[in-house]
Amino acid sequence: MNLLDHGNPVFIAYAVSASILILKAVAMSWLTVLRMMQENGGFRAPEDLRKTPLNPRPRSTQLEPNERVERIRRIQHNDTENLPYFLVAGLLFVFTQPRLWVAQSLFYGYVATRLAHFGAYFTARSHDLRAALWTPGSLIVVYMSVMALIGAIGS
Amino acid sequence: MNLLDHGNPVFIAYAVSASILILKAVAMSWLTVLRMMQENGGFRAPEDLRKTPLNPRPRSTQLEPNERVERIRRIQHNDTENLPYFLVAGLLFVFTQPRLWVAQSLFYGYVATRLAHFGAYFTARSHDLRAALWTPGSLIVVYMSVMALIGAIGS
Amino acid sequence: MNLLDHGNPVFIAYAVSASILILKAVAMSWLTVLRMMQENGGFRAPEDLRKTPLNPRPRSTQLEPNERVERIRRIQHNDTENLPYFLVAGLLFVFTQPRLWVAQSLFYGYVATRLAHFGAYFTARSHDLRAALWTPGSLIVVYMSVMALIGAIGS
Repeated sequence: MNLLDHGNPVFIAYAVSASILILKAVAMSWLTVLRMMQENGGFRAPEDLRKTPLNPRPRSTQLEPNERVERIRRIQHNDTENLPYFLVAGLLFVFTQPRLWVAQSLFYGYVATRLAHFGAYFTARSHDLRAALWTPGSLIVVYMSVMALIGAIGS
Repeated sequence: MNLLDHGNPVFIAYAVSASILILKAVAMSWLTVLRMMQENGGFRAPEDLRKTPLNPRPRSTQLEPNERVERIRRIQHNDTENLPYFLVAGLLFVFTQPRLWVAQSLFYGYVATRLAHFGAYFTARSHDLRAALWTPGSLIVVYMSVMALIGAIGS
Repeated sequence: MNLLDHGNPVFIAYAVSASILILKAVAMSWLTVLRMMQENGGFRAPEDLRKTPLNPRPRSTQLEPNERVERIRRIQHNDTENLPYFLVAGLLFVFTQPRLWVAQSLFYGYVATRLAHFGAYFTARSHDLRAALWTPGSLIVVYMSVMALIGAIGS
């Protein structure tokens, strides 16, 4: 049986959650661009101070960290530290042939907590809330990886 | 039908583009190493100031940011924010069974714009050119993710 | 023949090594959390200075870089620059149908050198040792990517 197939509802759940997470992650890049334009700053490369159509009036302060831009960069950084591992652990988890409701709970639960984590970070809620929203997603990745490991060793 | 197979030309196109991108990404690590050796600086860990065969004459300035090294780190950082999402989105896109020329255009187009983006960043071209070369790749990942999402939901 | 299947021992070796690496990577997040709690500092977001149950006595120095926390962040950063590429290159390498002992050597060799690299970085060993432990893993990813590229082009 081919488990990586649109005929396998567990794989469908993986593909849906993975697609949403990738779109979420890419949105962070665009949000960074948007905020750099709004703030006219928060740039990082020295050449970004050159006079160009997109930057008609350069000033040296444009390279200083801008908190509104940095916030999105921190969120994006959190994504790069987390999402790639979910994306691979989730795929490997499909091979353990979990029950559909278990897989859906883990995959969609991960997506839900990551979106909520974004909301909490974006609106500068307390560290405690952010931690509470990050933790379940991390535990889901741990659980899926352990199951994938056990499933692979045991087969 | 098994879509993840060397008999599927869409998967071949994915495997070719993914391999090239991974090699490109790994090359950034080696380029960082090369520039740290050339500059004899741009290090990051305090222990790197210890006297060793590779660093026979340590000096405290070796831990200061070095622009020639930092440039490669920024390029590498841009890779880590983008490539993992392409690599997974591209794989999921294979399951939507796109027309071969569409898949090849997207996969090879992504590779081409990322290589051009590297060239522009490496040679410190204007922000405008860099942005123009980053944008199509990001839109390709968005398109593939949306198609993967629609394809998964609709099956 | 379906190569991504628990009946394929090369895929088993991939799944085992990938699972272990993901667990290792996630452990870095938890280690960062642990050290931030031990040090009561090394935070990054301005809102983390708010008085909350987890931070009953905030002080402005909590946002300053803390070397014990930064060390784990550097290790985690090294993971995000390396592991995602191994995870995808390894999967593509499975499609080249390598001999089992070759695949196991590369996959488990990668895991072993990454764990050793972590040990060396965590205990602040010399840069030379760290470099010596990073290099084989990077070469393994290059080798697997080149083989995946050749295998895809040649089929």
